[in-house]
Amino acid sequence: MNGDTEAEFRDLIKAGAKAVRAKEIDGVLAHHTDDMVMFDVPPPVIVKGIDAYRETWPEFFRWQQKGDGSFDIVSLNITAGDQVAFATAVLRCGSKEELKKDGTPSLQLTVGLRKDHGRWQIAHEHHSFPAKWSP
Amino acid sequence: MNGDTEAEFRDLIKAGAKAVRAKEIDGVLAHHTDDMVMFDVPPPVIVKGIDAYRETWPEFFRWQQKGDGSFDIVSLNITAGDQVAFATAVLRCGSKEELKKDGTPSLQLTVGLRKDHGRWQIAHEHHSFPAKWSP
Repeated sequence: MNGDTEAEFRDLIKAGAKAVRAKEIDGVLAHHTDDMVMFDVPPPVIVKGIDAYRETWPEFFRWQQKGDGSFDIVSLNITAGDQVAFATAVLRCGSKEELKKDGTPSLQLTVGLRKDHGRWQIAHEHHSFPAKWSP
Repeated sequence: MNGDTEAEFRDLIKAGAKAVRAKEIDGVLAHHTDDMVMFDVPPPVIVKGIDAYRETWPEFFRWQQKGDGSFDIVSLNITAGDQVAFATAVLRCGSKEELKKDGTPSLQLTVGLRKDHGRWQIAHEHHSFPAKWSP
């Protein structure tokens, strides 16, 4: 993979995480395909399409607001071809109280990307927490 | 994506699931890269490398044996480029007792693939259960 693609991906995923922290829904949705599919933690676990994806965020934003929650990328690895790519990431995602406890609440994130009309877009997200941190 | 690639992927993932059901570790590992990374449900949640991946299976096989567990592909979607691809799948994965209860215990699976030496191999797996089914 060339350096430009890797840098583009990192910017794209970092911008998404930043938008999550800022609770800016347009920024969260800015790089997704209309037909994206998400495997999520709370029900509905399988989310199909950008409209359904949009609807999942207000609840998360409320949780963030209440618990002063974090959403920080700890590690990010990218495997990219010409038209399709996937990325794996670990994020710290928890309320201030949770982050004080032993261990770090980590959110595992896999992202599937494809090039649509010349630009990379997110077509799949899979989020999960380690069993002990599941809601 | 051409039909040959899609068929190759389906065969590869179905063969893997069949090997899991048969508890045949060599079949389970047959199409993975040495540097694969798995995000799993039970600890250790982040598994790096084929040797660590191999070590996660005996416990699952014991659980399967005890509960007469299923591991069946319900749906499978593939997005493939020339060198990199990802697949999303939903599997029925539970003991006979669990499968009798309301709802279907579903395992969400994302697979990241890359072409190594001319053949597709699995470089990443991400497994998760809906929150209510978490161990």
